[in-house]
Amino acid sequence: MANKKQPNKNGNLNEWVNKLKRIEENAERLSLLSRLGQILNSTLDHQEVRRRAMEAAIQLMKAEVGSLLLIDEEKNQLYFEVALGDREEAIKKIILNIGEGIAGTVAKNGEALIINAPEKDPRFYRGVDEKTEFKTRNIICVPVIVKEKTVGVLEAINKNGGEDFNEEDLSLFTSLADQVAIALDSARVYQELEEMFFQTAESLADAIEKRDPYTGGHTQRVTTYSLAMAKYLPLKPAEMKWLKISAVLHDIGKIGIDDRILRKPERLNPEEFNTIKRHATMGAEIIDHIKQLKNIIPGIKYHHEQIDGTGYPEGLKGERIPIIAKIVAVADTFDAMTTDRPYRTGLSKEVAIDELRKCSGTQLDQNVVEAFVRAYEKGEI
Amino acid sequence: MANKKQPNKNGNLNEWVNKLKRIEENAERLSLLSRLGQILNSTLDHQEVRRRAMEAAIQLMKAEVGSLLLIDEEKNQLYFEVALGDREEAIKKIILNIGEGIAGTVAKNGEALIINAPEKDPRFYRGVDEKTEFKTRNIICVPVIVKEKTVGVLEAINKNGGEDFNEEDLSLFTSLADQVAIALDSARVYQELEEMFFQTAESLADAIEKRDPYTGGHTQRVTTYSLAMAKYLPLKPAEMKWLKISAVLHDIGKIGIDDRILRKPERLNPEEFNTIKRHATMGAEIIDHIKQLKNIIPGIKYHHEQIDGTGYPEGLKGERIPIIAKIVAVADTFDAMTTDRPYRTGLSKEVAIDELRKCSGTQLDQNVVEAFVRAYEKGEI
Repeated sequence: MANKKQPNKNGNLNEWVNKLKRIEENAERLSLLSRLGQILNSTLDHQEVRRRAMEAAIQLMKAEVGSLLLIDEEKNQLYFEVALGDREEAIKKIILNIGEGIAGTVAKNGEALIINAPEKDPRFYRGVDEKTEFKTRNIICVPVIVKEKTVGVLEAINKNGGEDFNEEDLSLFTSLADQVAIALDSARVYQELEEMFFQTAESLADAIEKRDPYTGGHTQRVTTYSLAMAKYLPLKPAEMKWLKISAVLHDIGKIGIDDRILRKPERLNPEEFNTIKRHATMGAEIIDHIKQLKNIIPGIKYHHEQIDGTGYPEGLKGERIPIIAKIVAVADTFDAMTTDRPYRTGLSKEVAIDELRKCSGTQLDQNVVEAFVRAYEKGEI
Repeated sequence: MANKKQPNKNGNLNEWVNKLKRIEENAERLSLLSRLGQILNSTLDHQEVRRRAMEAAIQLMKAEVGSLLLIDEEKNQLYFEVALGDREEAIKKIILNIGEGIAGTVAKNGEALIINAPEKDPRFYRGVDEKTEFKTRNIICVPVIVKEKTVGVLEAINKNGGEDFNEEDLSLFTSLADQVAIALDSARVYQELEEMFFQTAESLADAIEKRDPYTGGHTQRVTTYSLAMAKYLPLKPAEMKWLKISAVLHDIGKIGIDDRILRKPERLNPEEFNTIKRHATMGAEIIDHIKQLKNIIPGIKYHHEQIDGTGYPEGLKGERIPIIAKIVAVADTFDAMTTDRPYRTGLSKEVAIDELRKCSGTQLDQNVVEAFVRAYEKGEI
C-alpha cells in the first residue's frame, strides 16, 4: 500500500508518465545529436560541413527549414551561407547587417533567441519572408562560437506540428552549434594548410621558372589551362587535385638544367636539346621520395610523351600515357605556341587552337584537345 | 482512483522509479558523450586525440583505467598506444598479437566484448596483470572502426563501485569509439597533408641546393641542428614549426643566383660576394606573397645578420634580430665550418664548437650558442 501512495507524494501519476516520456524523447534526441556530431566531424571539406550543419539543424529541431549564416567580418554582415528546402536559391541571396533581424541580433550579442511570435517582435526582419514568399511561424537561433568568437549563427524555422520551440530545443541546438563550430574550425585549419601547400609549391615553381627568362608565367598558365579543360573530362575530385599539383610542378626538373642551356636565346642544338629533355625524368626524381605525391609522378614524367609514341622520355603510346600527363601536355603545347620566344613571335590563340586540332590524335590526345577547345569556346581559356 | 491503480497494470511502482532513474542517468551520459565528442574533435593533433580518447573512455565508462590499442598492420600486432592511470608506463610497453587476449580478439573480429569475470575467460591474457601488478575485475572493449576497417580497440577496465559493465555501457562506449575513429581519421588526414607540405618543401629546397655542388645535405643538416638547439630555448610549439620551415627554406633565394657564381670553385671576389648576399632578400621575396608563411620571412631574410650589426642584408643588431634567424645563423655557421670546400677542408666538430664560442656575443647570439653546445654535449648534434 505504501507504494500505491507514493505517486501522491511526488505529484500526479500522469505527470510522472509525461515526465518519463519527455526524458525518453530527450535521450533519443541526445543520441541523434551524437550521431549528427559524428557526421559533421567526418569531413574536413568546409563546404560539406556547412551543408551537413544545415541538414542537422532541420533534423534535430524537427523544423521546416534552417540555415547557417556566417559573419563577413570585413563587411560587418551576415550572409546566408547555406539554406536547405525549396526556397534555397531565394534565401541564399539575402545578406543581413550585424544587429539586423533575429539572426543579426544573435550574431551581435552572441546569445541564443527563441521567437515564437515573430510578427510581434520588432527585431524580426520581414524582408526574408517577403523575398521568399515564406511564412515564418517561429524561430530558434543560436550563435556559432569558435574560440570565444561568434563566427555565425545557426537557425531553424517553423517547428513541425505547429509546436513552439522550447528550452529543451535550445539546449540541444546550442550543443549542435558547438559541434558545428568545431567542425567548421577543423575544416578551416585543414583548408589553410592546403592553401599553404599549394602556394608554396607555386612560389617555388615560379622561382625555378624565373631562371628561364622566356617563360614568365608559364607554370601559372599551364595550371589554369589544365584545370579549365579538366572540367570537360571525366576526372574524379581527387584526380583534379593531383592534376593541379602536377601542372604546378611539371617543369620542376628544370632546376637541374644549366643556366647556359636554359637561357640560351638561340635554338638549341641536338645535344643541348637532349639535355633539356632530361627535365621530365629529373622532375619525377625530385618528387619520387615524397610518399604522398606519388600520384603526380606520371603527370611530371610523361608530360612530353606523344600519342604516336614519338615523345620522351619513354616513347609511350596512346592509352599507356596517363590522363594527367595528356592534359598537361595540351596545356604546355598551347602555352609554348602562344608565347613569344627570342627567335619567333607567339601565335594567336585562334591559330594555336587550329594547330592543336592538327596534332590531335597523333601528338596530342583527341578527347583532351576536344575538352580544351570546349573550354576555349566557353571563354574559360 | 483510476490513477492509483495504474502502477499495477504497468508493473510495480519501484520498477517505474528505477526505470526513470536509469533513463535520466542515460540522458546525462548521452550529454557527456556529446561533450566528449566535441573535445575529441576539437584538435587535429593525432597524439592529442589519442590522449583525449583515453580520458574520455575512463570518464564515460566510470572506470579505473582504460587504454587505446592501435593495430600495426605490418606486424599484425596491437600496441598500447596510450594508457592513463598510475601504471601508464608499465602498460605502454605491452604488445599483443591480433587474436590474443580480449583486446586482440576484439581487434580480430571487429566485435565488442564485455567480460565481467575475466579469470574464468580463456581469452583473457594474464600477462598484462602480471607485468603491471594490476587486478582486472572486468573489461569492456569495443573496436575502433574507420571506413569499415578496424584500426584499433578502445578498452575500459574495472567499473567504479564494483559494478559490472552492462548493455547501456556498451551502447555508449560504441558511440564513443565511433567519435574516436572520426577524430583519429581527421588527425591522420591533417598529418598526411602536413607531411606532404614539409616533404615537398624539403625536396624542392634540396633540388635547389644541388645546383651548388659544395653543399650536399646542407639544408637537411641546418634543419636538424636548428631543431636540436631549439629544444634548449624557450620556443612555443608554433615557433618550433616556423623554425623548421625557415630552416628548410633558408637558402631558397639561391635559386636566383647564377650558376657561374654558385659553382665557382675559387673564393668569390667582392662583387660576386655581393651578388650571393642577395639570396637572403630574394628568398624572403619568394615567400613574401604566401599569406600563411609570413612568419618564416624573418628566419630567411635575417639568417646572415650578426649581433654586432656587421651582417647583411640590413645590419640589424642584437635584440632586433628575430630569434628564428639567430638559430638558423648558428646552424648555418656550424655547418659551413664543418663541411669541406674546394679551397679548404672542414673543421672537426670540436674545433667548430670552440669557434662558435669565440663568435658568441659578437657574431652569434650567446643564448643560442649555449643551446647549441648543450645539444652537442647531449649527443644530439
